[in-house]
This record gives sequence, C-alpha cells and structure tokens, in this order.
Amino acid sequence: MKPVKLYQLKDYTFATKEAQVDEEGNAHSRILKLQSDYASYGVRRAVEAIILVHEHKHPHVLMFQFGGAYFKLPGDNLSPEEDEIEGLCKSLNKKLGSEAKSVEASSTEKDTNGGKTEMQANEWIIGECISTYYRPNFETFMYPYCPPHISRPKEIKKTFLVHLPDKKILTVPRNMKLIAVPLFELYDNCARYGQQLAALPHLLSRFDFDFVEK
Amino acid sequence: MKPVKLYQLKDYTFATKEAQVDEEGNAHSRILKLQSDYASYGVRRAVEAIILVHEHKHPHVLMFQFGGAYFKLPGDNLSPEEDEIEGLCKSLNKKLGSEAKSVEASSTEKDTNGGKTEMQANEWIIGECISTYYRPNFETFMYPYCPPHISRPKEIKKTFLVHLPDKKILTVPRNMKLIAVPLFELYDNCARYGQQLAALPHLLSRFDFDFVEK
Repeated sequence: MKPVKLYQLKDYTFATKEAQVDEEGNAHSRILKLQSDYASYGVRRAVEAIILVHEHKHPHVLMFQFGGAYFKLPGDNLSPEEDEIEGLCKSLNKKLGSEAKSVEASSTEKDTNGGKTEMQANEWIIGECISTYYRPNFETFMYPYCPPHISRPKEIKKTFLVHLPDKKILTVPRNMKLIAVPLFELYDNCARYGQQLAALPHLLSRFDFDFVEK
Repeated sequence: MKPVKLYQLKDYTFATKEAQVDEEGNAHSRILKLQSDYASYGVRRAVEAIILVHEHKHPHVLMFQFGGAYFKLPGDNLSPEEDEIEGLCKSLNKKLGSEAKSVEASSTEKDTNGGKTEMQANEWIIGECISTYYRPNFETFMYPYCPPHISRPKEIKKTFLVHLPDKKILTVPRNMKLIAVPLFELYDNCARYGQQLAALPHLLSRFDFDFVEK
C-alpha cells in the first residue's frame, strides 16, 4: 500500500467565515431530532472526515472543539438517498471550505483541463473507509458493530480518511474552534475524547505515512 | 469493498496435537529475549492473525488464552529477512495446522491445478493489514504509532485479517486453549484484554460481513 502523504500544520492557511448555527445543540435535542428523522426517513446515515496533518513527523487529527470538552470530526448527516462521498464533500465545504464561489465537489483530483494540476479550493479527496459505528437505540452511545438482537439500528455513521493536498485554505466558522490533536494525546484517552476518537490511533496504524517537510 | 464471509464456529473442527513449549514465558523473560535478539538482529518484526467466525451473526475472534487472563492472537516473531505473509502462514501451521504432512504455505487459494478448488489443510488466506504496533523501549507496552522522539523502535508488530474457508480442521497444542471471543466482549474492555485486543471491534468495523449459515 502506498504511503499516505502528510503535510505540516503550517502548510495550511486557516481563515474564518461567518458563524454557523451550532447544530450539535445538547444531547437531548439531538436524540429528539433523530427520533423524528427516523420516523420520517428511516435509518439515519452520517459521514465524518479524518483529516490529518503532521507536526514533528507525528500525525495530528483535525477536529472541532465545542465548549470545553466536546470534540467532533468534521462531517454531517446525509439526506435520504444522498451519496456518502458527495455528502461528505458538501459537509466539508460547509464547515471548512472557502467562501469563494463554490465549485462542484469531487472525490478525485481533477487533472483533465490542460495540465491544470492545482486543486480547486473546494474540492476534497475522500479516501479509505476507516470505521463504521452503529447507534442501536435512541441513546447517545454508538458501537463499532451492530449489537446482537438489534435488527435495525437507528443510525449508521462512517468515517473516511480525507487526503489533503500540500496546501489549502481551511475556513472555519467564527463561532467554531478547529484544533489539531496528536495521536499520542488521543491514545488511551476515552475519558476526554470518547471511545471513537480515542480509537483513531489504532484505526490509522495500518497506514504508512510519508511526513513531508517543505 | 466485497463483504468478508464469516462461517459459524460449528463449521470448524477443533482437534488437539502434541503440547508445544509455551514460548510466552513471563514478561521479564520475554523482554530479556527481545534485548538479546535486538542486539543480534536489530528491530524485531512480529505478525499476528485475526481469525473470525460468527455465532448468531455476531463476529467472534479466535485467540489463545494463557492462564486466567493473558490473551494472545495466533502469530509469532519473524526471522530476520523472513517475509511477513510466509512467516504468518508458518506460525499458523505450527499453532493451528493439522499434523498431516505439511504442504507449502500460500497466501492465496490455489486454483490452478485442474479445477481443484478445495483448500489444502495447511494453507491460509492472509488478507488485509489491520493494524501496526510499535514497542519503543524494552518494556511491555506497545503503541499504534511510533512515539515522537523514538528514532528506532525495538519491535514492530503487524496484524492481518485471515480469511477462513467454509470448513477447516484447526489443531491446537494440548497445553493451549483456543477461545472465540465476541466483539461485544472485547469492546471497551482494556482492563481484561489490553489495548490492542480491545481495539479489534473498532479495527474491524470498516468491513461488511456476510454471515453464512449452512
């Protein structure tokens, strides 16, 4: 398997854009929304992005921090019938894309128009599926498998590795905080980050990384 | 990605063979052996197999249990220069292979000799790399990344998914105990199984499983 190229945090430009409604709300309102969505559309599908940079040749994961200690990967729920890759690109543009005229989201780097190799501002390269989580009930906990005796989960969430180009402008809503968390901070740290984020070091360990320093 | 076919525990025949020296020994002697190997051959490489069956459509992982609470996936250290896949097959034959005349280990199902599709007793289909662990020092702990400031780990261990055929005889040394542990038992259970085994549910969540019931 080809090594995954990681670039340094300093290779990216972080800008801010208009505040967005914090859709996370509180746990109770999230569950109520899930219940009403489930009644209308069935099993909810969600997608999240694992976006990596490196500092001193150690991988760091980009994630949002809400309040003091609620952390979340960039991503969103999918509309019924929405394609996973397209939905994830759309969500990444909303959360991290520049505000310049939006271009069509694409899962592969476009290199067809006359040797134009530079990546469009709002394109994302969505890579490997890393994990899948199942929400068996209208509760906050999710598992990396569908528990026995649950014939139909309420939500299925997939995470994908997103390959950043060697430079990019990431534009963060003014009311949100994007942080880069090293793997050694996530490891064995369910207490702070929860089961899913604390498992990221394990999930990423199968990849060889090429730590590019410019 | 194609679903991974899992068969039921009852589809496999478990036999016993002659006792083998328990190379695990105690933690102290393992570290002393690692130190002397490192001095002679450099970084140790090890490989382990994740072998799955299902019960009631829930994946179970086959592992050895030593004493009351030391669990280990089948696998072994590699000799210097030994190929990962060949080394893992050799180890699986030693630990789980039948004692019939050994046939050459192979990483892919042989289907070249006149439509002969049945798998040889001692062949194994080694699949995807699932995780990599690094031992930074001559200590018991390993991490799913090479920690910063460690230029040369002492040991690197890779785990691979091993695809079982729809039936097979697994022959276990008389002094060893092979058990099938459900994912829901491993999940969030570092206390009993340690970080690496407790992470298996996360690591396997990216696969779709086809639970075959005959």
